[in-house]
Amino acid sequence: MIEILQDVLNSEIPLTKALGVKVVEYTENGLTLCAPLENNINHKCTAFGGSLYSVSVLTGWGLIYLLLKKYDLTGHIVIQESNTKFIKPVDSTITSKCSFNSHEHYDKFIKMYKRKGKARITLESHIVCDGKTSVIFTGNYVVHT
Amino acid sequence: MIEILQDVLNSEIPLTKALGVKVVEYTENGLTLCAPLENNINHKCTAFGGSLYSVSVLTGWGLIYLLLKKYDLTGHIVIQESNTKFIKPVDSTITSKCSFNSHEHYDKFIKMYKRKGKARITLESHIVCDGKTSVIFTGNYVVHT
Repeated sequence: MIEILQDVLNSEIPLTKALGVKVVEYTENGLTLCAPLENNINHKCTAFGGSLYSVSVLTGWGLIYLLLKKYDLTGHIVIQESNTKFIKPVDSTITSKCSFNSHEHYDKFIKMYKRKGKARITLESHIVCDGKTSVIFTGNYVVHT
Repeated sequence: MIEILQDVLNSEIPLTKALGVKVVEYTENGLTLCAPLENNINHKCTAFGGSLYSVSVLTGWGLIYLLLKKYDLTGHIVIQESNTKFIKPVDSTITSKCSFNSHEHYDKFIKMYKRKGKARITLESHIVCDGKTSVIFTGNYVVHT
């Protein structure tokens, strides 16, 4: 699944190669992506906000993509609205994790998508650096056939 | 001023070269940046959300940079929190504009920065495509010495 998502990201969104996004870990409930600081650095030797956002939004996107795949579904995954809190600068590898809160969190979404061909889900991606939360991204995604 | 900001963006945030960000217009009240769709495309032939965000956040950043320059000030410009509404897909050049609401909008900010060495300002960047607003980005920036 990790390789499939890596290929999808690189082929569908070419900028992921410039960002250096790598799929690191996938479990039933969560997805972790990372990107090297080097590709995303600013003059203060910390990560550029646009890069932090990009990795965060892709983590949610990827988690939905793999969830759909698990249920043999496909769809267009679109970000509709997001809120991003930049709490601490990121001065090493950007590591972003996005998880479902519970089984119900995605179960309701999948049921709605199967019934209506369109469903919404809100996901949080966290970027943690040196054990401390640096970025909290909250995204409202819509998926449609 | 356009050339100065272009050099600053490219040298301080190398990813701007991959994004293809160009400084287009600067007036007393507003800054316009653009980026080609080609660099920022996704598989649906529209712009990647992370790219739309990056150009938006940089437009606000650039407007503050040039404002400080006008007052012979320097400082660290940091994005603290942002909200981004993706209203319509962008299927041509990404064009982002960020403006001050009024003279008072930045005057208060500059006075505070001179007095305290730290000040906050909220700015909106709009991405317009085919005459319609596609993205509304609201960013809370903090500037410190």
